[in-house]
Amino acid sequence: MIRIGIVGSGRVAYHLTKGFLNSSLHKDIRLEGVYARDKVTLSTFLPSAFIINDLEDLKNADVLLIAVSDEAINEVSFLIPFTDKIIAHTSGSTPMEVLSKHDRRGVFYPLQTFSKEKNVVWNEIPIAIEATSVTDEAILQKIASALSGNVLRLNSEQRVALHASAVFVANFVNHMFVLGHEICKKNNISFELLKPLIKETAQKVITLSPKEAQTGPAVRFDHQTIERHKTLLHSFPEGLYLYDVITKSIQNVHKNNISFSQK
Amino acid sequence: MIRIGIVGSGRVAYHLTKGFLNSSLHKDIRLEGVYARDKVTLSTFLPSAFIINDLEDLKNADVLLIAVSDEAINEVSFLIPFTDKIIAHTSGSTPMEVLSKHDRRGVFYPLQTFSKEKNVVWNEIPIAIEATSVTDEAILQKIASALSGNVLRLNSEQRVALHASAVFVANFVNHMFVLGHEICKKNNISFELLKPLIKETAQKVITLSPKEAQTGPAVRFDHQTIERHKTLLHSFPEGLYLYDVITKSIQNVHKNNISFSQK
Repeated sequence: MIRIGIVGSGRVAYHLTKGFLNSSLHKDIRLEGVYARDKVTLSTFLPSAFIINDLEDLKNADVLLIAVSDEAINEVSFLIPFTDKIIAHTSGSTPMEVLSKHDRRGVFYPLQTFSKEKNVVWNEIPIAIEATSVTDEAILQKIASALSGNVLRLNSEQRVALHASAVFVANFVNHMFVLGHEICKKNNISFELLKPLIKETAQKVITLSPKEAQTGPAVRFDHQTIERHKTLLHSFPEGLYLYDVITKSIQNVHKNNISFSQK
Repeated sequence: MIRIGIVGSGRVAYHLTKGFLNSSLHKDIRLEGVYARDKVTLSTFLPSAFIINDLEDLKNADVLLIAVSDEAINEVSFLIPFTDKIIAHTSGSTPMEVLSKHDRRGVFYPLQTFSKEKNVVWNEIPIAIEATSVTDEAILQKIASALSGNVLRLNSEQRVALHASAVFVANFVNHMFVLGHEICKKNNISFELLKPLIKETAQKVITLSPKEAQTGPAVRFDHQTIERHKTLLHSFPEGLYLYDVITKSIQNVHKNNISFSQK
Protein backbone atom coordinates (compact mmCIF):
# COMPACT_ATOMS: atom_id res chain seq x y z
CA MET A 1 0.00 0.00 0.00
CA ILE A 2 1.32 3.44 -0.94
CA ARG A 3 -0.25 6.31 0.96
CA ILE A 4 -0.37 9.73 -0.70
CA GLY A 5 -0.63 13.13 0.94
CA ILE A 6 -1.28 16.28 -1.07
CA VAL A 7 -0.17 19.75 0.01
CA GLY A 8 -1.95 22.63 -1.70
CA SER A 9 -5.38 23.84 -2.74
CA GLY A 10 -4.83 25.32 -6.19
CA ARG A 11 -5.95 23.91 -9.49
CA VAL A 12 -3.36 21.15 -9.65
CA ALA A 13 -4.04 20.03 -6.05
CA TYR A 14 -7.77 20.08 -6.79
CA HIS A 15 -7.52 17.84 -9.85
CA LEU A 16 -4.89 15.54 -8.30
CA THR A 17 -7.18 15.02 -5.32
CA LYS A 18 -10.15 14.28 -7.57
CA GLY A 19 -8.00 11.99 -9.70
CA PHE A 20 -6.71 9.87 -6.82
CA LEU A 21 -10.13 9.77 -5.19
CA ASN A 22 -11.71 8.44 -8.39
CA SER A 23 -8.90 6.09 -9.36
CA SER A 24 -10.11 2.56 -8.85
CA LEU A 25 -7.27 1.13 -10.90
CA HIS A 26 -4.84 0.51 -8.09
CA LYS A 27 -6.19 -0.89 -4.87
CA ASP A 28 -2.76 -0.61 -3.28
CA ILE A 29 -2.73 3.19 -3.54
CA ARG A 30 -4.62 5.38 -1.12
CA LEU A 31 -5.19 9.09 -0.69
CA GLU A 32 -4.30 9.83 2.92
CA GLY A 33 -5.34 13.47 3.06
CA VAL A 34 -5.00 16.95 1.64
CA TYR A 35 -3.38 19.82 3.52
CA ALA A 36 -5.05 22.89 2.09
CA ARG A 37 -5.36 26.55 3.02
CA ASP A 38 -8.50 26.88 0.91
CA LYS A 39 -10.79 24.17 2.27
CA VAL A 40 -13.94 25.48 0.65
CA THR A 41 -13.34 24.32 -2.91
CA LEU A 42 -12.14 20.90 -1.81
CA SER A 43 -15.09 20.35 0.52
CA THR A 44 -17.48 20.37 -2.46
CA PHE A 45 -16.33 16.85 -3.32
CA LEU A 46 -13.85 15.72 -0.65
CA PRO A 47 -15.18 14.08 2.56
CA SER A 48 -14.06 16.22 5.50
CA ALA A 49 -12.02 13.39 6.98
CA PHE A 50 -9.54 13.86 4.13
CA ILE A 51 -9.02 17.57 4.76
CA ILE A 52 -5.98 17.97 7.00
CA ASN A 53 -5.33 20.97 9.27
CA ASP A 54 -1.91 20.01 10.49
CA LEU A 55 0.93 18.64 8.38
CA GLU A 56 1.64 16.20 11.25
CA ASP A 57 -1.61 14.47 10.34
CA LEU A 58 0.08 13.25 7.14
CA LYS A 59 2.56 11.18 9.17
CA ASN A 60 1.29 7.91 7.69
CA ALA A 61 1.77 9.05 4.10
CA ASP A 62 4.61 7.56 2.04
CA VAL A 63 4.66 10.28 -0.60
CA LEU A 64 3.78 13.96 -0.27
CA LEU A 65 2.94 15.80 -3.46
CA ILE A 66 3.51 19.54 -3.14
CA ALA A 67 1.06 21.24 -5.49
CA VAL A 68 1.60 24.92 -4.71
CA SER A 69 2.78 27.85 -6.83
CA ASP A 70 6.36 27.50 -8.11
CA GLU A 71 7.71 30.29 -5.91
CA ALA A 72 6.28 28.66 -2.76
CA ILE A 73 7.65 25.15 -3.28
CA ASN A 74 10.94 25.72 -1.51
CA GLU A 75 9.34 27.44 1.48
CA VAL A 76 6.66 24.78 1.84
CA SER A 77 9.31 22.05 1.67
CA PHE A 78 10.85 23.50 4.84
CA LEU A 79 7.52 23.28 6.68
CA ILE A 80 7.26 19.54 6.11
CA PRO A 81 8.31 17.89 9.37
CA PHE A 82 9.23 14.47 7.96
CA THR A 83 12.49 12.99 6.73
CA ASP A 84 11.34 9.47 5.81
CA LYS A 85 8.95 10.29 2.98
CA ILE A 86 9.28 11.06 -0.71
CA ILE A 87 8.62 14.77 -1.14
CA ALA A 88 7.79 15.61 -4.77
CA HIS A 89 6.71 18.85 -6.38
CA THR A 90 4.39 19.09 -9.41
CA SER A 91 6.00 21.95 -11.32
CA GLY A 92 7.15 21.80 -14.93
CA SER A 93 9.88 24.39 -14.80
CA THR A 94 11.24 24.01 -11.26
CA PRO A 95 14.39 21.90 -10.77
CA MET A 96 14.11 18.98 -8.37
CA GLU A 97 16.95 20.55 -6.37
CA VAL A 98 14.61 23.17 -4.93
CA LEU A 99 13.60 20.36 -2.55
CA SER A 100 17.19 19.83 -1.38
CA LYS A 101 16.14 19.89 2.27
CA HIS A 102 14.81 16.37 1.65
CA ASP A 103 16.99 13.40 0.70
CA ARG A 104 14.08 11.55 -0.90
CA ARG A 105 12.98 14.28 -3.27
CA GLY A 106 11.17 13.95 -6.56
CA VAL A 107 9.04 15.51 -9.26
CA PHE A 108 5.56 14.53 -10.36
CA TYR A 109 4.63 16.85 -13.25
CA PRO A 110 1.30 16.40 -15.01
CA LEU A 111 1.41 18.11 -18.40
CA GLN A 112 -2.00 19.71 -18.76
CA THR A 113 -3.77 23.03 -18.34
CA PHE A 114 -6.09 22.86 -15.37
CA SER A 115 -9.16 24.97 -14.60
CA LYS A 116 -11.44 24.32 -11.66
CA GLU A 117 -14.45 24.74 -13.93
CA LYS A 118 -13.51 21.86 -16.18
CA ASN A 119 -12.94 18.18 -15.50
CA VAL A 120 -9.84 16.59 -16.98
CA VAL A 121 -9.35 13.12 -18.42
CA TRP A 122 -6.45 11.97 -16.27
CA ASN A 123 -5.79 8.83 -18.26
CA GLU A 124 -4.60 10.88 -21.25
CA ILE A 125 -2.39 13.31 -19.34
CA PRO A 126 1.36 12.64 -19.56
CA ILE A 127 3.02 12.63 -16.15
CA ALA A 128 6.78 13.27 -16.05
CA ILE A 129 8.53 11.88 -12.99
CA GLU A 130 12.00 12.28 -11.53
CA ALA A 131 13.55 10.96 -8.28
CA THR A 132 16.92 10.53 -6.58
CA SER A 133 16.82 6.73 -6.47
CA VAL A 134 15.53 3.88 -8.57
CA THR A 135 13.33 2.74 -5.66
CA ASP A 136 11.67 6.14 -5.29
CA GLU A 137 11.29 6.43 -9.04
CA ALA A 138 9.40 3.13 -9.03
CA ILE A 139 7.09 4.41 -6.29
CA LEU A 140 6.34 7.63 -8.20
CA GLN A 141 5.87 5.56 -11.36
CA LYS A 142 3.32 3.44 -9.53
CA ILE A 143 1.21 6.30 -8.21
CA ALA A 144 1.40 8.16 -11.55
CA SER A 145 0.14 5.02 -13.28
CA ALA A 146 -2.90 5.06 -11.02
CA LEU A 147 -3.93 8.26 -12.84
CA SER A 148 -2.46 8.04 -16.30
CA GLY A 149 -1.54 5.59 -19.01
CA ASN A 150 1.28 7.91 -20.08
CA VAL A 151 4.04 8.13 -17.46
CA LEU A 152 7.64 8.96 -18.40
CA ARG A 153 10.95 9.80 -16.77
CA LEU A 154 12.47 13.17 -17.59
CA ASN A 155 15.41 14.92 -16.01
CA SER A 156 15.02 18.52 -14.82
CA GLU A 157 16.47 20.04 -18.01
CA GLN A 158 14.19 18.06 -20.32
CA ARG A 159 11.25 18.94 -18.14
CA VAL A 160 11.95 22.69 -18.53
CA ALA A 161 12.08 22.14 -22.30
CA LEU A 162 8.76 20.28 -22.23
CA HIS A 163 7.29 23.08 -20.13
CA ALA A 164 8.57 25.81 -22.47
CA SER A 165 7.14 23.90 -25.40
CA ALA A 166 3.83 23.64 -23.54
CA VAL A 167 3.84 27.42 -23.09
CA PHE A 168 3.98 27.80 -26.88
CA VAL A 169 1.32 25.21 -27.74
CA ALA A 170 -1.09 26.17 -24.93
CA ASN A 171 -0.56 29.58 -23.29
CA PHE A 172 0.61 31.37 -26.44
CA VAL A 173 -2.04 29.61 -28.50
CA ASN A 174 -4.65 30.88 -26.07
CA HIS A 175 -3.27 34.41 -26.48
CA MET A 176 -3.88 34.06 -30.23
CA PHE A 177 -7.49 33.23 -29.30
CA VAL A 178 -7.62 36.38 -27.12
CA LEU A 179 -6.46 38.57 -30.03
CA GLY A 180 -8.78 36.85 -32.53
CA HIS A 181 -11.66 37.33 -30.10
CA GLU A 182 -10.84 41.02 -29.80
CA ILE A 183 -10.93 41.47 -33.59
CA CYS A 184 -14.32 39.74 -33.78
CA LYS A 185 -15.76 41.83 -30.96
CA LYS A 186 -14.70 45.09 -32.55
CA ASN A 187 -16.25 44.12 -35.89
CA ASN A 188 -19.52 42.72 -34.54
CA ILE A 189 -18.71 39.18 -35.51
CA SER A 190 -19.51 36.27 -33.23
CA PHE A 191 -16.41 34.40 -31.97
CA GLU A 192 -18.58 31.27 -32.21
CA LEU A 193 -17.88 31.27 -35.95
CA LEU A 194 -14.22 30.50 -35.29
CA LYS A 195 -14.77 27.48 -33.07
CA PRO A 196 -14.93 24.85 -35.84
CA LEU A 197 -11.67 26.30 -37.21
CA ILE A 198 -10.04 26.21 -33.77
CA LYS A 199 -11.07 22.58 -33.38
CA GLU A 200 -9.83 21.64 -36.84
CA THR A 201 -6.49 23.41 -36.34
CA ALA A 202 -5.84 21.36 -33.19
CA GLN A 203 -6.95 18.16 -34.89
CA LYS A 204 -4.73 18.71 -37.92
CA VAL A 205 -1.50 18.38 -35.93
CA ILE A 206 -2.65 15.05 -34.57
CA THR A 207 -2.10 13.61 -38.05
CA LEU A 208 0.20 16.10 -39.85
CA SER A 209 3.48 17.59 -38.64
CA PRO A 210 2.99 21.27 -37.66
CA LYS A 211 5.21 22.39 -40.51
CA GLU A 212 3.19 20.46 -43.11
CA ALA A 213 -0.01 21.81 -41.57
CA GLN A 214 0.98 25.48 -41.96
CA THR A 215 -1.41 27.43 -44.19
CA GLY A 216 -2.34 31.09 -44.53
CA PRO A 217 -1.10 34.31 -46.14
CA ALA A 218 2.27 34.38 -44.33
CA VAL A 219 3.57 31.03 -45.57
CA ARG A 220 2.19 31.80 -49.07
CA PHE A 221 4.00 35.18 -48.98
CA ASP A 222 0.62 36.64 -50.03
CA HIS A 223 1.48 40.32 -49.56
CA GLN A 224 -1.89 41.62 -50.76
CA THR A 225 -3.82 39.73 -48.06
CA ILE A 226 -1.24 40.63 -45.42
CA GLU A 227 -1.63 44.31 -46.31
CA ARG A 228 -5.44 44.08 -46.13
CA HIS A 229 -5.18 42.56 -42.64
CA LYS A 230 -2.70 45.20 -41.51
CA THR A 231 -4.98 47.98 -42.74
CA LEU A 232 -7.83 46.48 -40.74
CA LEU A 233 -5.61 46.22 -37.64
CA HIS A 234 -4.26 49.77 -37.73
CA SER A 235 -6.56 50.82 -34.88
CA PHE A 236 -5.51 47.81 -32.76
CA PRO A 237 -1.75 48.34 -32.24
CA GLU A 238 -1.23 45.28 -30.02
CA GLY A 239 -2.85 43.06 -32.66
CA LEU A 240 -0.99 44.75 -35.52
CA TYR A 241 2.39 44.34 -33.81
CA LEU A 242 1.83 40.63 -33.12
CA TYR A 243 0.46 40.13 -36.65
CA ASP A 244 3.63 41.57 -38.09
CA VAL A 245 6.08 39.73 -35.83
CA ILE A 246 4.43 36.32 -36.24
CA THR A 247 3.96 36.71 -40.00
CA LYS A 248 7.70 37.42 -40.35
CA SER A 249 8.56 34.52 -38.06
CA ILE A 250 6.46 32.10 -40.15
CA GLN A 251 8.25 33.34 -43.27
CA ASN A 252 11.66 33.08 -41.59
CA VAL A 253 11.10 29.56 -40.34
CA HIS A 254 9.75 28.28 -43.64
CA LYS A 255 12.32 30.04 -45.79
CA ASN A 256 15.47 29.52 -43.75
CA ASN A 257 14.60 26.40 -41.83
CA ILE A 258 15.68 28.20 -38.66
CA SER A 259 16.23 25.94 -35.70
CA PHE A 260 18.27 25.56 -32.53
CA SER A 261 21.88 26.40 -33.27
CA GLN A 262 24.39 23.57 -33.02
CA LYS A 263 26.26 23.63 -29.76
CA MET B 1 -33.03 23.64 -59.78
CA ILE B 2 -29.81 25.60 -59.17
CA ARG B 3 -26.82 24.43 -61.21
CA ILE B 4 -23.35 25.04 -59.82
CA GLY B 5 -20.07 25.27 -61.69
CA ILE B 6 -16.72 25.34 -59.91
CA VAL B 7 -13.59 26.96 -61.33
CA GLY B 8 -10.31 25.84 -59.75
CA SER B 9 -8.44 22.78 -58.60
CA GLY B 10 -6.83 23.81 -55.30
CA ARG B 11 -7.82 22.70 -51.83
CA VAL B 12 -10.99 24.78 -51.63
CA ALA B 13 -12.20 23.66 -55.08
CA TYR B 14 -11.42 20.06 -54.12
CA HIS B 15 -13.46 20.14 -50.91
CA LEU B 16 -16.30 22.20 -52.44
CA THR B 17 -16.61 19.63 -55.21
CA LYS B 18 -16.63 16.76 -52.74
CA GLY B 19 -19.12 18.62 -50.58
CA PHE B 20 -21.64 19.31 -53.36
CA LEU B 21 -21.22 15.81 -54.77
CA ASN B 22 -22.01 14.26 -51.38
CA SER B 23 -24.77 16.67 -50.39
CA SER B 24 -28.04 14.81 -50.57
CA LEU B 25 -29.82 17.47 -48.56
CA HIS B 26 -31.08 19.57 -51.44
CA LYS B 27 -32.44 17.75 -54.46
CA ASP B 28 -32.87 21.04 -56.27
CA ILE B 29 -29.12 21.78 -56.32
CA ARG B 30 -26.81 20.14 -58.79
CA LEU B 31 -23.10 20.20 -59.49
CA GLU B 32 -22.77 20.95 -63.19
CA GLY B 33 -19.03 20.59 -63.56
CA VAL B 34 -15.57 21.63 -62.42
CA TYR B 35 -13.19 23.56 -64.64
CA ALA B 36 -9.75 22.58 -63.35
CA ARG B 37 -6.20 22.82 -64.55
CA ASP B 38 -5.15 19.97 -62.30
CA LYS B 39 -7.48 17.14 -63.29
CA VAL B 40 -5.51 14.39 -61.58
CA THR B 41 -6.53 15.05 -57.97
CA LEU B 42 -10.18 15.56 -58.87
CA SER B 43 -10.34 12.39 -60.95
CA THR B 44 -9.68 10.26 -57.86
CA PHE B 45 -13.28 10.82 -56.79
CA LEU B 46 -15.02 12.87 -59.52
CA PRO B 47 -16.60 11.03 -62.49
CA SER B 48 -14.88 12.29 -65.65
CA ALA B 49 -18.16 13.67 -67.05
CA PHE B 50 -17.94 16.40 -64.39
CA ILE B 51 -14.46 17.54 -65.37
CA ILE B 52 -14.77 20.43 -67.80
CA ASN B 53 -12.11 21.41 -70.35
CA ASP B 54 -13.75 24.52 -71.71
CA LEU B 55 -15.45 27.22 -69.65
CA GLU B 56 -18.18 27.30 -72.35
CA ASP B 57 -19.24 23.86 -71.11
CA LEU B 58 -20.52 25.54 -67.94
CA LYS B 59 -23.14 27.46 -69.95
CA ASN B 60 -26.00 25.74 -68.13
CA ALA B 61 -24.73 26.68 -64.67
CA ASP B 62 -26.55 29.34 -62.65
CA VAL B 63 -23.71 30.06 -60.24
CA LEU B 64 -19.98 29.84 -60.84
CA LEU B 65 -17.79 29.58 -57.74
CA ILE B 66 -14.24 30.77 -58.40
CA ALA B 67 -11.97 28.83 -56.05
CA VAL B 68 -8.52 29.95 -57.15
CA SER B 69 -5.70 31.78 -55.34
CA ASP B 70 -6.61 35.32 -54.27
CA GLU B 71 -4.27 36.99 -56.78
CA ALA B 72 -5.81 35.06 -59.68
CA ILE B 73 -9.50 35.82 -58.97
CA ASN B 74 -9.64 39.03 -60.98
CA GLU B 75 -7.87 37.54 -63.99
CA VAL B 76 -10.04 34.41 -63.96
CA SER B 77 -13.18 36.54 -63.74
CA PHE B 78 -12.24 38.07 -67.12
CA LEU B 79 -11.97 34.64 -68.72
CA ILE B 80 -15.56 33.76 -67.84
CA PRO B 81 -17.61 34.27 -71.04
CA PHE B 82 -21.04 34.66 -69.39
CA THR B 83 -23.00 37.69 -68.25
CA ASP B 84 -26.17 36.01 -66.97
CA LYS B 85 -24.73 34.00 -64.07
CA ILE B 86 -23.79 34.74 -60.49
CA ILE B 87 -19.99 34.79 -60.33
CA ALA B 88 -18.78 34.39 -56.74
CA HIS B 89 -15.28 34.02 -55.32
CA THR B 90 -14.44 32.00 -52.20
CA SER B 91 -11.79 34.22 -50.61
CA GLY B 92 -11.91 35.60 -47.07
CA SER B 93 -9.86 38.74 -47.58
CA THR B 94 -10.72 39.73 -51.15
CA PRO B 95 -13.39 42.42 -51.67
CA MET B 96 -16.38 41.44 -53.81
CA GLU B 97 -15.48 44.36 -56.08
CA VAL B 98 -12.58 42.42 -57.58
CA LEU B 99 -15.32 40.78 -59.68
CA SER B 100 -16.58 44.12 -61.01
CA LYS B 101 -16.57 42.82 -64.57
CA HIS B 102 -19.73 40.93 -63.61
CA ASP B 103 -22.97 42.60 -62.56
CA ARG B 104 -24.15 39.55 -60.63
CA ARG B 105 -21.10 39.13 -58.41
CA GLY B 106 -20.89 37.56 -55.01
CA VAL B 107 -18.80 35.93 -52.32
CA PHE B 108 -19.06 32.41 -50.95
CA TYR B 109 -16.42 32.14 -48.20
CA PRO B 110 -16.15 28.92 -46.21
CA LEU B 111 -14.26 29.57 -42.97
CA GLN B 112 -12.05 26.55 -42.53
CA THR B 113 -8.51 25.35 -43.08
CA PHE B 114 -8.44 22.83 -45.90
CA SER B 115 -5.86 20.14 -46.63
CA LYS B 116 -6.28 17.56 -49.36
CA GLU B 117 -5.15 14.84 -46.95
CA LYS B 118 -8.00 15.43 -44.54
CA ASN B 119 -11.76 15.30 -44.96
CA VAL B 120 -13.80 18.16 -43.58
CA VAL B 121 -17.20 18.14 -41.90
CA TRP B 122 -19.01 20.62 -44.13
CA ASN B 123 -22.07 20.86 -41.96
CA GLU B 124 -20.06 22.62 -39.20
CA ILE B 125 -18.21 25.07 -41.43
CA PRO B 126 -19.53 28.64 -41.38
CA ILE B 127 -20.07 30.02 -44.89
CA ALA B 128 -20.14 33.81 -45.27
CA ILE B 129 -22.02 35.06 -48.32
CA GLU B 130 -22.35 38.42 -50.00
CA ALA B 131 -24.14 39.46 -53.21
CA THR B 132 -25.29 42.57 -55.08
CA SER B 133 -29.02 41.81 -54.88
CA VAL B 134 -31.43 40.15 -52.48
CA THR B 135 -32.34 37.59 -55.15
CA ASP B 136 -28.73 36.54 -55.70
CA GLU B 137 -28.13 36.49 -51.97
CA ALA B 138 -31.03 34.06 -51.61
CA ILE B 139 -29.52 31.82 -54.29
CA LEU B 140 -26.11 31.79 -52.61
CA GLN B 141 -27.84 31.19 -49.28
CA LYS B 142 -29.57 28.17 -50.75
CA ILE B 143 -26.48 26.53 -52.16
CA ALA B 144 -24.47 27.30 -49.01
CA SER B 145 -27.21 25.63 -46.97
CA ALA B 146 -26.76 22.48 -49.03
CA LEU B 147 -23.33 22.18 -47.42
CA SER B 148 -23.57 23.84 -44.05
CA GLY B 149 -25.96 24.51 -41.20
CA ASN B 150 -24.13 27.76 -40.50
CA VAL B 151 -24.60 30.31 -43.29
CA LEU B 152 -24.37 34.07 -42.65
CA ARG B 153 -24.25 37.34 -44.55
CA LEU B 154 -21.15 39.48 -44.08
CA ASN B 155 -20.07 42.56 -45.98
CA SER B 156 -16.55 42.73 -47.40
CA GLU B 157 -15.11 44.66 -44.44
CA GLN B 158 -16.49 42.25 -41.85
CA ARG B 159 -15.23 39.35 -43.92
CA VAL B 160 -11.67 40.73 -43.86
CA ALA B 161 -11.98 41.04 -40.08
CA LEU B 162 -13.20 37.46 -39.79
CA HIS B 163 -10.34 36.35 -42.01
CA ALA B 164 -7.73 38.27 -39.97
CA SER B 165 -9.16 36.74 -36.82
CA ALA B 166 -8.94 33.32 -38.44
CA VAL B 167 -5.25 33.95 -39.18
CA PHE B 168 -4.66 34.43 -35.44
CA VAL B 169 -6.67 31.44 -34.23
CA ALA B 170 -5.48 29.03 -36.93
CA ASN B 171 -2.33 30.04 -38.88
CA PHE B 172 -0.58 31.73 -35.95
CA VAL B 173 -1.70 28.98 -33.59
CA ASN B 174 -0.12 26.46 -35.95
CA HIS B 175 3.11 28.46 -35.90
CA MET B 176 3.12 28.08 -32.10
CA PHE B 177 2.90 24.33 -32.72
CA VAL B 178 5.88 24.60 -35.12
CA LEU B 179 7.99 26.34 -32.47
CA GLY B 180 6.89 23.95 -29.69
CA HIS B 181 7.71 21.03 -31.96
CA GLU B 182 11.18 22.46 -32.60
CA ILE B 183 11.88 22.74 -28.85
CA CYS B 184 10.80 19.12 -28.32
CA LYS B 185 12.93 17.87 -31.21
CA LYS B 186 16.05 19.59 -29.93
CA ASN B 187 15.59 18.17 -26.44
CA ASN B 188 14.74 14.60 -27.46
CA ILE B 189 11.17 14.86 -26.27
CA SER B 190 8.31 13.38 -28.26
CA PHE B 191 5.84 15.98 -29.58
CA GLU B 192 3.18 13.32 -28.95
CA LEU B 193 3.29 14.31 -25.28
CA LEU B 194 1.82 17.70 -26.12
CA LYS B 195 -1.18 16.47 -28.05
CA PRO B 196 -3.57 16.07 -25.09
CA LEU B 197 -2.64 19.62 -24.04
CA ILE B 198 -3.24 20.94 -27.57
CA LYS B 199 -6.64 19.26 -27.62
CA GLU B 200 -7.58 20.59 -24.18
CA THR B 201 -6.46 24.15 -25.02
CA ALA B 202 -8.78 24.17 -28.05
CA GLN B 203 -11.63 22.65 -26.04
CA LYS B 204 -11.28 25.16 -23.21
CA VAL B 205 -12.32 28.12 -25.38
CA ILE B 206 -15.47 26.30 -26.39
CA THR B 207 -16.77 26.86 -22.85
CA LEU B 208 -14.63 29.68 -21.40
CA SER B 209 -13.83 33.07 -22.93
CA PRO B 210 -10.20 33.15 -24.16
CA LYS B 211 -9.31 35.76 -21.55
CA GLU B 212 -10.68 33.64 -18.69
CA ALA B 213 -8.88 30.62 -20.12
CA GLN B 214 -5.43 32.26 -20.07
CA THR B 215 -2.95 30.44 -17.85
CA GLY B 216 0.84 30.18 -17.73
CA PRO B 217 3.87 32.09 -16.45
CA ALA B 218 3.22 35.29 -18.49
CA VAL B 219 -0.23 36.06 -17.08
CA ARG B 220 1.00 35.10 -13.57
CA PHE B 221 3.98 37.46 -14.02
CA ASP B 222 6.08 34.50 -12.89
CA HIS B 223 9.51 35.95 -13.69
CA GLN B 224 11.47 32.98 -12.38
CA THR B 225 9.81 30.54 -14.79
CA ILE B 226 10.05 33.01 -17.66
CA GLU B 227 13.80 33.36 -17.03
CA ARG B 228 14.23 29.57 -16.95
CA HIS B 229 12.49 29.28 -20.31
CA LYS B 230 14.56 32.09 -21.81
CA THR B 231 17.78 30.44 -20.65
CA LEU B 232 16.69 27.22 -22.35
CA LEU B 233 15.84 29.12 -25.55
CA HIS B 234 19.09 31.08 -25.84
CA SER B 235 20.36 28.78 -28.59
CA PHE B 236 17.07 29.10 -30.54
CA PRO B 237 16.88 32.84 -31.34
CA GLU B 238 13.64 32.64 -33.35
CA GLY B 239 11.92 30.87 -30.44
CA LEU B 240 13.41 33.21 -27.85
CA TYR B 241 12.30 36.32 -29.74
CA LEU B 242 8.72 35.08 -30.10
CA TYR B 243 8.70 33.92 -26.46
CA ASP B 244 9.65 37.39 -25.34
CA VAL B 245 7.23 39.30 -27.60
CA ILE B 246 4.21 37.11 -26.83
CA THR B 247 4.94 37.01 -23.09
CA LYS B 248 4.97 40.82 -23.03
CA SER B 249 1.81 40.98 -25.14
CA ILE B 250 -0.04 38.67 -22.73
CA GLN B 251 1.05 40.88 -19.84
CA ASN B 252 0.06 44.04 -21.73
CA VAL B 253 -3.37 42.79 -22.65
CA HIS B 254 -4.16 41.49 -19.18
CA LYS B 255 -2.76 44.50 -17.34
CA ASN B 256 -3.98 47.33 -19.51
CA ASN B 257 -6.99 45.78 -21.12
CA ILE B 258 -5.62 46.93 -24.47
CA SER B 259 -8.12 46.82 -27.30
CA PHE B 260 -9.10 48.51 -30.54
CA SER B 261 -8.88 52.26 -30.09
CA GLN B 262 -12.15 54.17 -30.20
CA LYS B 263 -12.75 55.78 -33.55
